[in-house]
Amino acid sequence: MKYLNSQEAIQIDNELMSETYKYTLSQLMELAGLSSSMAVEKVFTKKEKNVLILVGPGNNGGDGLVAARHLSIFGNKVYIHYPKPNKNFNHLLRQCESHKVLILDDLSNISVDFDVVIDAVFGFSFKGNKKKSYIEKYLTGILIIKGDIRDPFGKVIKFLNFTKIPIASIDIPSGYDVEKGNTDNLFVPALLISLTCPKLGVKNFKGRHFLGGRFIPNELEVKYELNTPSYHGSEQIVEITN
Amino acid sequence: MKYLNSQEAIQIDNELMSETYKYTLSQLMELAGLSSSMAVEKVFTKKEKNVLILVGPGNNGGDGLVAARHLSIFGNKVYIHYPKPNKNFNHLLRQCESHKVLILDDLSNISVDFDVVIDAVFGFSFKGNKKKSYIEKYLTGILIIKGDIRDPFGKVIKFLNFTKIPIASIDIPSGYDVEKGNTDNLFVPALLISLTCPKLGVKNFKGRHFLGGRFIPNELEVKYELNTPSYHGSEQIVEITN
Repeated sequence: MKYLNSQEAIQIDNELMSETYKYTLSQLMELAGLSSSMAVEKVFTKKEKNVLILVGPGNNGGDGLVAARHLSIFGNKVYIHYPKPNKNFNHLLRQCESHKVLILDDLSNISVDFDVVIDAVFGFSFKGNKKKSYIEKYLTGILIIKGDIRDPFGKVIKFLNFTKIPIASIDIPSGYDVEKGNTDNLFVPALLISLTCPKLGVKNFKGRHFLGGRFIPNELEVKYELNTPSYHGSEQIVEITN
Repeated sequence: MKYLNSQEAIQIDNELMSETYKYTLSQLMELAGLSSSMAVEKVFTKKEKNVLILVGPGNNGGDGLVAARHLSIFGNKVYIHYPKPNKNFNHLLRQCESHKVLILDDLSNISVDFDVVIDAVFGFSFKGNKKKSYIEKYLTGILIIKGDIRDPFGKVIKFLNFTKIPIASIDIPSGYDVEKGNTDNLFVPALLISLTCPKLGVKNFKGRHFLGGRFIPNELEVKYELNTPSYHGSEQIVEITN
Protein backbone atom coordinates (compact mmCIF):
# COMPACT_ATOMS: atom_id res chain seq x y z
CA MET A 1 0.00 0.00 0.00
CA LYS A 2 1.13 3.49 -0.86
CA TYR A 3 1.90 6.06 1.84
CA LEU A 4 1.33 9.50 0.36
CA ASN A 5 3.74 12.38 0.55
CA SER A 6 2.38 15.82 1.25
CA GLN A 7 2.26 16.85 -2.40
CA GLU A 8 0.35 13.71 -3.43
CA ALA A 9 -2.18 14.12 -0.60
CA ILE A 10 -2.89 17.69 -1.65
CA GLN A 11 -3.07 16.74 -5.34
CA ILE A 12 -5.53 13.89 -4.79
CA ASP A 13 -7.75 16.14 -2.68
CA ASN A 14 -7.69 18.78 -5.41
CA GLU A 15 -8.35 16.24 -8.14
CA LEU A 16 -11.37 14.82 -6.32
CA MET A 17 -12.93 18.29 -6.29
CA SER A 18 -11.81 19.22 -9.82
CA GLU A 19 -14.04 19.46 -12.88
CA THR A 20 -12.96 15.91 -13.71
CA TYR A 21 -14.36 14.21 -10.61
CA LYS A 22 -16.71 16.91 -9.32
CA TYR A 23 -16.95 15.83 -5.68
CA THR A 24 -18.15 18.59 -3.40
CA LEU A 25 -16.31 19.24 -0.14
CA SER A 26 -19.62 18.58 1.62
CA GLN A 27 -19.82 15.06 0.18
CA LEU A 28 -16.20 14.16 0.94
CA MET A 29 -16.48 15.54 4.46
CA GLU A 30 -19.71 13.66 5.14
CA LEU A 31 -18.16 10.36 4.03
CA ALA A 32 -14.83 11.02 5.77
CA GLY A 33 -16.51 12.02 9.03
CA LEU A 34 -18.91 9.11 8.88
CA SER A 35 -16.10 6.60 8.34
CA SER A 36 -14.13 8.14 11.20
CA SER A 37 -17.11 7.81 13.53
CA MET A 38 -17.56 4.19 12.45
CA ALA A 39 -13.93 3.33 13.26
CA VAL A 40 -14.26 4.94 16.70
CA GLU A 41 -17.47 3.00 17.30
CA LYS A 42 -15.80 -0.23 16.22
CA VAL A 43 -12.77 0.15 18.48
CA PHE A 44 -14.42 1.82 21.48
CA THR A 45 -17.38 -0.49 21.94
CA LYS A 46 -18.71 0.88 25.24
CA LYS A 47 -22.30 2.03 24.85
CA GLU A 48 -23.24 5.60 25.64
CA LYS A 49 -19.57 6.41 26.05
CA ASN A 50 -18.32 9.92 26.69
CA VAL A 51 -16.52 11.23 23.63
CA LEU A 52 -14.53 14.45 23.42
CA ILE A 53 -13.71 15.80 19.97
CA LEU A 54 -10.99 18.42 19.55
CA VAL A 55 -11.94 20.37 16.46
CA GLY A 56 -9.42 22.36 14.46
CA PRO A 57 -9.91 25.35 12.16
CA GLY A 58 -9.71 23.59 8.77
CA ASN A 59 -11.08 20.60 6.91
CA ASN A 60 -9.79 18.12 9.51
CA GLY A 61 -11.98 19.99 11.99
CA GLY A 62 -14.92 19.74 9.57
CA ASP A 63 -14.45 15.96 9.45
CA GLY A 64 -14.48 16.06 13.26
CA LEU A 65 -17.79 17.95 13.35
CA VAL A 66 -19.37 15.40 11.03
CA ALA A 67 -17.97 12.57 13.18
CA ALA A 68 -19.35 14.30 16.30
CA ARG A 69 -22.87 14.32 14.87
CA HIS A 70 -22.74 10.67 13.82
CA LEU A 71 -21.27 9.54 17.15
CA SER A 72 -24.08 11.34 18.93
CA ILE A 73 -26.63 9.68 16.64
CA PHE A 74 -25.00 6.33 17.53
CA GLY A 75 -26.02 6.95 21.14
CA ASN A 76 -22.86 8.39 22.69
CA LYS A 77 -22.50 11.50 24.83
CA VAL A 78 -20.45 13.78 22.65
CA TYR A 79 -18.64 16.99 23.51
CA ILE A 80 -16.61 19.19 21.22
CA HIS A 81 -13.84 21.65 22.01
CA TYR A 82 -13.84 24.06 19.09
CA PRO A 83 -11.80 27.13 20.00
CA LYS A 84 -11.74 28.72 16.56
CA PRO A 85 -15.01 28.12 14.71
CA ASN A 86 -14.78 28.14 10.92
CA LYS A 87 -17.71 30.01 9.42
CA ASN A 88 -17.72 27.69 6.39
CA PHE A 89 -18.80 24.93 8.75
CA ASN A 90 -21.53 26.82 10.62
CA HIS A 91 -24.04 24.31 9.30
CA LEU A 92 -22.02 21.39 10.66
CA LEU A 93 -21.83 23.05 14.05
CA ARG A 94 -25.58 23.71 14.03
CA GLN A 95 -26.18 20.05 13.16
CA CYS A 96 -24.03 19.03 16.12
CA GLU A 97 -26.03 21.27 18.42
CA SER A 98 -29.36 19.93 17.19
CA HIS A 99 -28.04 16.42 17.80
CA LYS A 100 -27.26 17.28 21.44
CA VAL A 101 -23.51 17.57 21.07
CA LEU A 102 -22.25 19.79 23.90
CA ILE A 103 -19.59 22.46 23.64
CA LEU A 104 -16.70 22.42 26.07
CA ASP A 105 -15.00 25.80 26.23
CA ASP A 106 -12.12 25.02 28.56
CA LEU A 107 -9.87 21.95 28.44
CA SER A 108 -8.14 22.84 31.68
CA ASN A 109 -11.15 22.09 33.83
CA ILE A 110 -12.80 18.87 32.70
CA SER A 111 -15.32 17.17 34.95
CA VAL A 112 -16.45 14.45 32.53
CA ASP A 113 -14.84 11.01 32.55
CA PHE A 114 -14.10 10.65 28.84
CA ASP A 115 -13.70 7.22 27.23
CA VAL A 116 -12.02 8.53 24.11
CA VAL A 117 -10.77 11.83 22.75
CA ILE A 118 -10.81 12.39 19.00
CA ASP A 119 -8.05 14.48 17.52
CA ALA A 120 -9.52 16.42 14.56
CA VAL A 121 -7.22 19.41 14.94
CA PHE A 122 -4.79 19.41 12.00
CA GLY A 123 -4.87 17.26 8.86
CA PHE A 124 -2.51 16.60 6.00
CA SER A 125 -2.12 20.26 5.12
CA PHE A 126 -0.49 21.01 8.49
CA LYS A 127 2.91 22.58 7.95
CA GLY A 128 5.19 20.92 10.46
CA ASN A 129 8.18 23.19 10.15
CA LYS A 130 6.17 26.38 10.27
CA LYS A 131 4.53 25.60 13.57
CA LYS A 132 7.21 23.46 15.14
CA SER A 133 8.76 26.10 17.35
CA TYR A 134 5.34 27.02 18.58
CA ILE A 135 4.58 23.46 19.67
CA GLU A 136 7.98 23.03 21.26
CA LYS A 137 7.41 26.13 23.34
CA TYR A 138 4.17 24.68 24.60
CA LEU A 139 5.70 21.32 25.37
CA THR A 140 8.25 22.89 27.61
CA GLY A 141 5.37 24.58 29.40
CA ILE A 142 6.13 28.15 28.40
CA LEU A 143 3.07 29.87 27.05
CA ILE A 144 4.02 31.96 24.06
CA ILE A 145 1.23 33.94 22.44
CA LYS A 146 1.82 33.90 18.70
CA GLY A 147 -1.41 35.44 17.49
CA ASP A 148 -5.02 34.34 17.27
CA ILE A 149 -4.54 31.61 14.71
CA ARG A 150 -1.98 29.57 16.55
CA ASP A 151 -2.68 30.19 20.17
CA PRO A 152 -5.69 28.04 21.00
CA PHE A 153 -4.31 25.00 19.22
CA GLY A 154 -1.04 24.98 21.11
CA LYS A 155 -3.07 24.32 24.23
CA VAL A 156 -4.97 21.60 22.43
CA ILE A 157 -1.79 19.81 21.31
CA LYS A 158 -0.47 20.09 24.83
CA PHE A 159 -3.69 18.51 26.13
CA LEU A 160 -3.28 15.61 23.69
CA ASN A 161 0.31 15.20 24.74
CA PHE A 162 -0.45 14.84 28.44
CA THR A 163 -3.90 13.25 28.60
CA LYS A 164 -4.41 9.69 29.81
CA ILE A 165 -7.60 9.33 27.71
CA PRO A 166 -7.13 7.07 24.67
CA ILE A 167 -6.78 9.17 21.53
CA ALA A 168 -8.24 8.56 18.07
CA SER A 169 -6.67 10.73 15.37
CA ILE A 170 -8.37 11.59 12.12
CA ASP A 171 -6.11 11.34 9.05
CA ILE A 172 -2.82 12.10 10.86
CA PRO A 173 -2.01 12.83 14.51
CA SER A 174 -2.07 16.60 14.92
CA GLY A 175 1.36 18.18 15.06
CA TYR A 176 3.03 15.29 13.24
CA ASP A 177 4.94 16.17 10.10
CA VAL A 178 2.92 14.72 7.20
CA GLU A 179 6.02 13.06 5.78
CA LYS A 180 8.52 12.73 8.63
CA GLY A 181 5.97 11.78 11.28
CA ASN A 182 6.41 12.22 15.00
CA THR A 183 9.57 14.33 14.91
CA ASP A 184 8.58 16.31 18.02
CA ASN A 185 7.99 13.30 20.25
CA LEU A 186 4.29 14.06 20.59
CA PHE A 187 1.46 11.76 21.72
CA VAL A 188 0.78 8.42 20.01
CA PRO A 189 -2.90 7.74 19.38
CA ALA A 190 -4.51 4.38 20.17
CA LEU A 191 -6.46 4.60 16.91
CA LEU A 192 -5.72 6.28 13.62
CA ILE A 193 -8.23 6.69 10.79
CA SER A 194 -6.35 7.48 7.58
CA LEU A 195 -8.56 9.07 4.96
CA THR A 196 -8.29 8.02 1.30
CA CYS A 197 -4.78 6.66 1.81
CA PRO A 198 -2.27 6.82 4.72
CA LYS A 199 0.38 9.55 4.71
CA LEU A 200 4.13 8.90 4.88
CA GLY A 201 4.32 10.29 8.42
CA VAL A 202 2.35 7.35 9.88
CA LYS A 203 4.24 4.59 8.13
CA ASN A 204 5.60 3.30 11.43
CA PHE A 205 2.38 3.74 13.41
CA LYS A 206 1.80 0.70 15.64
CA GLY A 207 -1.71 1.29 17.03
CA ARG A 208 -5.00 0.24 15.47
CA HIS A 209 -5.17 1.74 12.04
CA PHE A 210 -8.21 1.99 9.77
CA LEU A 211 -8.67 3.38 6.33
CA GLY A 212 -11.81 5.42 5.61
CA GLY A 213 -13.12 7.76 2.94
CA ARG A 214 -14.27 5.21 0.39
CA PHE A 215 -14.70 7.42 -2.63
CA ILE A 216 -11.56 7.20 -4.78
CA PRO A 217 -12.23 6.60 -8.47
CA ASN A 218 -10.27 3.74 -9.96
CA GLU A 219 -8.48 6.12 -12.34
CA LEU A 220 -6.90 7.89 -9.37
CA GLU A 221 -6.09 4.57 -7.66
CA VAL A 222 -4.14 3.63 -10.77
CA LYS A 223 -2.59 7.06 -11.40
CA TYR A 224 -1.17 7.34 -7.88
CA GLU A 225 -0.54 3.58 -7.52
CA LEU A 226 -2.41 3.61 -4.21
CA ASN A 227 -2.96 -0.14 -3.77
CA THR A 228 -5.43 0.51 -0.97
CA PRO A 229 -6.69 -2.61 0.83
CA SER A 230 -10.07 -4.03 -0.18
CA TYR A 231 -13.06 -2.97 1.84
CA HIS A 232 -15.56 -5.70 2.70
CA GLY A 233 -19.06 -5.47 1.19
CA SER A 234 -20.65 -2.11 1.96
CA GLU A 235 -18.34 -1.28 4.87
CA GLN A 236 -16.96 2.25 4.98
CA ILE A 237 -13.80 1.34 6.89
CA VAL A 238 -11.13 -1.34 6.59
CA GLU A 239 -8.47 -2.18 9.15
CA ILE A 240 -4.86 -1.90 8.04
CA THR A 241 -2.63 -4.59 9.46
CA ASN A 242 1.12 -4.31 9.22
CA MET B 1 -43.76 3.55 14.28
CA LYS B 2 -45.27 6.50 12.45
CA TYR B 3 -46.18 6.34 8.78
CA LEU B 4 -45.99 9.85 7.38
CA ASN B 5 -48.65 11.50 5.31
CA SER B 6 -47.57 13.56 2.32
CA GLN B 7 -47.70 16.86 4.19
CA GLU B 8 -45.53 15.55 7.05
CA ALA B 9 -42.96 14.08 4.67
CA ILE B 10 -42.63 17.41 2.88
CA GLN B 11 -42.50 19.36 6.15
CA ILE B 12 -39.78 17.19 7.68
CA ASP B 13 -37.69 17.49 4.51
CA ASN B 14 -38.09 21.27 4.58
CA GLU B 15 -37.30 21.47 8.28
CA LEU B 16 -34.09 19.47 7.87
CA MET B 17 -32.86 22.02 5.35
CA SER B 18 -34.21 25.06 7.23
CA GLU B 19 -32.13 27.58 9.15
CA THR B 20 -32.91 25.58 12.28
CA TYR B 21 -31.24 22.33 11.23
CA LYS B 22 -29.11 23.53 8.31
CA TYR B 23 -28.63 20.24 6.50
CA THR B 24 -27.59 20.68 2.88
CA LEU B 25 -29.36 18.67 0.19
CA SER B 26 -25.94 17.29 -0.71
CA GLN B 27 -25.48 15.82 2.79
CA LEU B 28 -28.96 14.33 3.01
CA MET B 29 -28.68 12.84 -0.46
CA GLU B 30 -25.26 11.34 0.27
CA LEU B 31 -26.53 9.64 3.43
CA ALA B 32 -29.84 8.59 1.87
CA GLY B 33 -28.14 7.16 -1.22
CA LEU B 34 -25.48 5.43 0.85
CA SER B 35 -28.06 3.79 3.11
CA SER B 36 -30.06 2.68 0.06
CA SER B 37 -26.97 1.09 -1.46
CA MET B 38 -26.23 -0.66 1.85
CA ALA B 39 -29.72 -2.17 2.02
CA VAL B 40 -29.43 -3.44 -1.57
CA GLU B 41 -26.02 -4.93 -0.75
CA LYS B 42 -27.42 -6.60 2.36
CA VAL B 43 -30.40 -8.21 0.60
CA PHE B 44 -28.79 -9.00 -2.76
CA THR B 45 -25.61 -10.67 -1.58
CA LYS B 46 -24.28 -11.89 -4.94
CA LYS B 47 -20.83 -10.48 -5.60
CA GLU B 48 -20.21 -8.43 -8.72
CA LYS B 49 -23.92 -8.51 -9.44
CA ASN B 50 -25.46 -6.59 -12.31
CA VAL B 51 -27.49 -3.68 -11.00
CA LEU B 52 -29.79 -1.47 -13.05
CA ILE B 53 -30.87 1.83 -11.52
CA LEU B 54 -33.82 3.72 -12.96
CA VAL B 55 -33.16 7.36 -12.18
CA GLY B 56 -35.95 9.94 -12.07
CA PRO B 57 -35.82 13.69 -12.58
CA GLY B 58 -35.99 14.84 -8.93
CA ASN B 59 -34.42 14.16 -5.56
CA ASN B 60 -35.36 10.48 -5.59
CA GLY B 61 -33.27 10.25 -8.75
CA GLY B 62 -30.42 12.05 -6.97
CA ASP B 63 -30.54 9.43 -4.22
CA GLY B 64 -30.38 6.82 -6.97
CA LEU B 65 -27.27 8.40 -8.51
CA VAL B 66 -25.52 8.37 -5.12
CA ALA B 67 -26.58 4.74 -4.60
CA ALA B 68 -25.26 3.89 -8.08
CA ARG B 69 -21.82 5.26 -7.22
CA HIS B 70 -21.63 3.40 -3.90
CA LEU B 71 -22.87 0.12 -5.41
CA SER B 72 -20.16 0.41 -8.04
CA ILE B 73 -17.55 1.08 -5.35
CA PHE B 74 -18.84 -2.05 -3.54
CA GLY B 75 -17.73 -4.05 -6.58
CA ASN B 76 -20.96 -4.44 -8.58
CA LYS B 77 -21.54 -3.79 -12.26
CA VAL B 78 -23.86 -0.84 -12.25
CA TYR B 79 -25.94 0.63 -15.06
CA ILE B 80 -28.25 3.61 -14.92
CA HIS B 81 -31.20 4.52 -17.09
CA TYR B 82 -31.54 8.28 -16.71
CA PRO B 83 -33.80 9.59 -19.45
CA LYS B 84 -34.16 13.13 -18.15
CA PRO B 85 -30.90 14.32 -16.53
CA ASN B 86 -31.30 17.00 -13.85
CA LYS B 87 -28.61 19.65 -14.22
CA ASN B 88 -28.49 20.13 -10.43
CA PHE B 89 -27.07 16.63 -10.20
CA ASN B 90 -24.46 16.89 -12.98
CA HIS B 91 -21.77 16.29 -10.36
CA LEU B 92 -23.47 13.10 -9.18
CA LEU B 93 -23.68 11.85 -12.76
CA ARG B 94 -20.03 12.68 -13.36
CA GLN B 95 -19.10 10.79 -10.17
CA CYS B 96 -21.04 7.78 -11.47
CA GLU B 97 -19.18 7.93 -14.76
CA SER B 98 -15.78 8.15 -13.08
CA HIS B 99 -16.74 5.12 -10.98
CA LYS B 100 -17.46 3.12 -14.15
CA VAL B 101 -21.24 3.23 -13.94
CA LEU B 102 -22.59 2.68 -17.44
CA ILE B 103 -25.49 4.49 -19.05
CA LEU B 104 -28.27 2.47 -20.62
CA ASP B 105 -30.27 4.57 -23.06
CA ASP B 106 -32.97 2.12 -24.04
CA LEU B 107 -34.92 -0.16 -21.71
CA SER B 108 -36.61 -1.98 -24.57
CA ASN B 109 -33.48 -3.75 -25.69
CA ILE B 110 -31.58 -5.07 -22.67
CA SER B 111 -28.82 -7.62 -23.16
CA VAL B 112 -27.53 -7.71 -19.57
CA ASP B 113 -28.81 -10.30 -17.09
CA PHE B 114 -29.65 -7.99 -14.18
CA ASP B 115 -29.79 -9.31 -10.62
CA VAL B 116 -31.71 -6.35 -9.25
CA VAL B 117 -33.32 -3.18 -10.56
CA ILE B 118 -33.46 -0.15 -8.32
CA ASP B 119 -36.45 2.12 -8.63
CA ALA B 120 -35.30 5.69 -7.97
CA VAL B 121 -37.83 7.31 -10.25
CA PHE B 122 -40.37 9.15 -8.09
CA GLY B 123 -40.21 9.86 -4.36
CA PHE B 124 -42.59 11.20 -1.77
CA SER B 125 -43.38 14.35 -3.72
CA PHE B 126 -44.93 12.33 -6.56
CA LYS B 127 -48.50 13.48 -7.18
CA GLY B 128 -50.50 10.32 -7.66
CA ASN B 129 -53.71 11.81 -8.94
CA LYS B 130 -52.07 14.14 -11.40
CA LYS B 131 -50.21 11.43 -13.25
CA LYS B 132 -52.61 8.57 -12.72
CA SER B 133 -54.34 8.66 -16.06
CA TYR B 134 -50.99 8.79 -17.76
CA ILE B 135 -49.78 5.65 -16.05
CA GLU B 136 -53.03 3.84 -16.70
CA LYS B 137 -52.72 4.59 -20.38
CA TYR B 138 -49.28 3.04 -20.37
CA LEU B 139 -50.45 -0.02 -18.50
CA THR B 140 -53.05 -0.73 -21.09
CA GLY B 141 -50.28 -0.55 -23.65
CA ILE B 142 -51.45 2.55 -25.44
CA LEU B 143 -48.61 4.98 -25.88
CA ILE B 144 -49.89 8.48 -25.23
CA ILE B 145 -47.34 11.29 -25.59
CA LYS B 146 -48.05 13.84 -22.90
CA GLY B 147 -45.04 16.11 -23.30
CA ASP B 148 -41.37 15.87 -22.45
CA ILE B 149 -41.70 15.76 -18.69
CA ARG B 150 -43.99 12.79 -18.40
CA ASP B 151 -43.19 10.75 -21.42
CA PRO B 152 -39.95 8.93 -20.61
CA PHE B 153 -41.11 7.94 -17.13
CA GLY B 154 -44.30 6.30 -18.32
CA LYS B 155 -42.10 3.83 -20.15
CA VAL B 156 -40.00 3.36 -17.03
CA ILE B 157 -43.04 2.60 -14.84
CA LYS B 158 -44.24 0.19 -17.48
CA PHE B 159 -40.85 -1.53 -17.41
CA LEU B 160 -41.06 -1.89 -13.63
CA ASN B 161 -44.56 -3.28 -13.94
CA PHE B 162 -43.63 -6.03 -16.33
CA THR B 163 -40.04 -6.96 -15.47
CA LYS B 164 -39.15 -10.26 -13.81
CA ILE B 165 -36.03 -8.74 -12.20
CA PRO B 166 -36.41 -8.23 -8.42
CA ILE B 167 -37.07 -4.56 -7.68
CA ALA B 168 -35.69 -2.42 -4.86
CA SER B 169 -37.56 0.86 -4.42
CA ILE B 170 -36.06 3.93 -2.79
CA ASP B 171 -38.43 5.69 -0.37
CA ILE B 172 -41.69 4.64 -2.04
CA PRO B 173 -42.42 2.51 -5.11
CA SER B 174 -42.70 4.87 -8.07
CA GLY B 175 -46.24 5.56 -9.15
CA TYR B 176 -47.72 4.66 -5.75
CA ASP B 177 -49.82 7.32 -4.07
CA VAL B 178 -47.79 8.54 -1.10
CA GLU B 179 -50.78 8.09 1.20
CA LYS B 180 -53.12 5.61 -0.49
CA GLY B 181 -50.40 3.31 -1.76
CA ASN B 182 -50.74 0.95 -4.71
CA THR B 183 -54.07 2.22 -6.02
CA ASP B 184 -53.16 1.49 -9.64
CA ASN B 185 -52.20 -2.13 -9.10
CA LEU B 186 -48.58 -1.51 -10.05
CA PHE B 187 -45.50 -3.66 -9.32
CA VAL B 188 -44.59 -4.73 -5.78
CA PRO B 189 -40.86 -4.41 -5.01
CA ALA B 190 -38.93 -7.17 -3.24
CA LEU B 191 -37.15 -4.55 -1.17
CA LEU B 192 -38.16 -1.11 0.00
CA ILE B 193 -35.81 1.40 1.61
CA SER B 194 -37.87 4.04 3.40
CA LEU B 195 -35.92 7.22 4.04
CA THR B 196 -36.23 9.03 7.37
CA CYS B 197 -39.59 7.40 8.12
CA PRO B 198 -41.98 5.24 6.05
CA LYS B 199 -44.86 6.90 4.23
CA LEU B 200 -48.53 5.97 4.71
CA GLY B 201 -48.73 4.43 1.23
CA VAL B 202 -46.42 1.52 2.19
CA LYS B 203 -48.14 0.63 5.46
CA ASN B 204 -49.22 -2.73 4.08
CA PHE B 205 -45.99 -3.50 2.24
CA LYS B 206 -45.04 -7.16 2.80
CA GLY B 207 -41.56 -7.39 1.27
CA ARG B 208 -38.24 -6.74 2.98
CA HIS B 209 -38.34 -3.25 4.33
CA PHE B 210 -35.42 -1.19 5.65
CA LEU B 211 -35.23 2.26 7.10
CA GLY B 212 -32.33 4.49 6.05
CA GLY B 213 -31.36 8.14 6.24
CA ARG B 214 -30.07 8.24 9.80
CA PHE B 215 -29.97 11.98 10.36
CA ILE B 216 -33.16 13.03 12.14
CA PRO B 217 -32.56 15.29 15.16
CA ASN B 218 -34.31 14.13 18.30
CA GLU B 219 -36.41 17.32 18.38
CA LEU B 220 -38.03 16.33 15.08
CA GLU B 221 -38.45 12.72 16.25
CA VAL B 222 -40.44 14.08 19.18
CA LYS B 223 -42.31 16.79 17.27
CA TYR B 224 -43.61 14.36 14.64
CA GLU B 225 -43.88 11.40 17.06
CA LEU B 226 -41.88 9.27 14.62
CA ASN B 227 -40.97 6.38 16.93
CA THR B 228 -38.47 5.08 14.40
CA PRO B 229 -36.86 1.74 15.27
CA SER B 230 -33.40 1.75 16.87
CA TYR B 231 -30.44 1.36 14.57
CA HIS B 232 -27.66 -0.93 15.80
CA GLY B 233 -24.26 0.62 16.56
CA SER B 234 -22.97 2.60 13.60
CA GLU B 235 -25.24 0.92 11.03
CA GLN B 236 -26.94 3.18 8.52
CA ILE B 237 -29.92 0.90 7.93
CA VAL B 238 -32.34 -1.01 10.14
CA GLU B 239 -34.82 -3.65 9.02
CA ILE B 240 -38.47 -3.01 9.75
CA THR B 241 -40.38 -6.11 10.73
CA ASN B 242 -44.16 -6.12 10.84
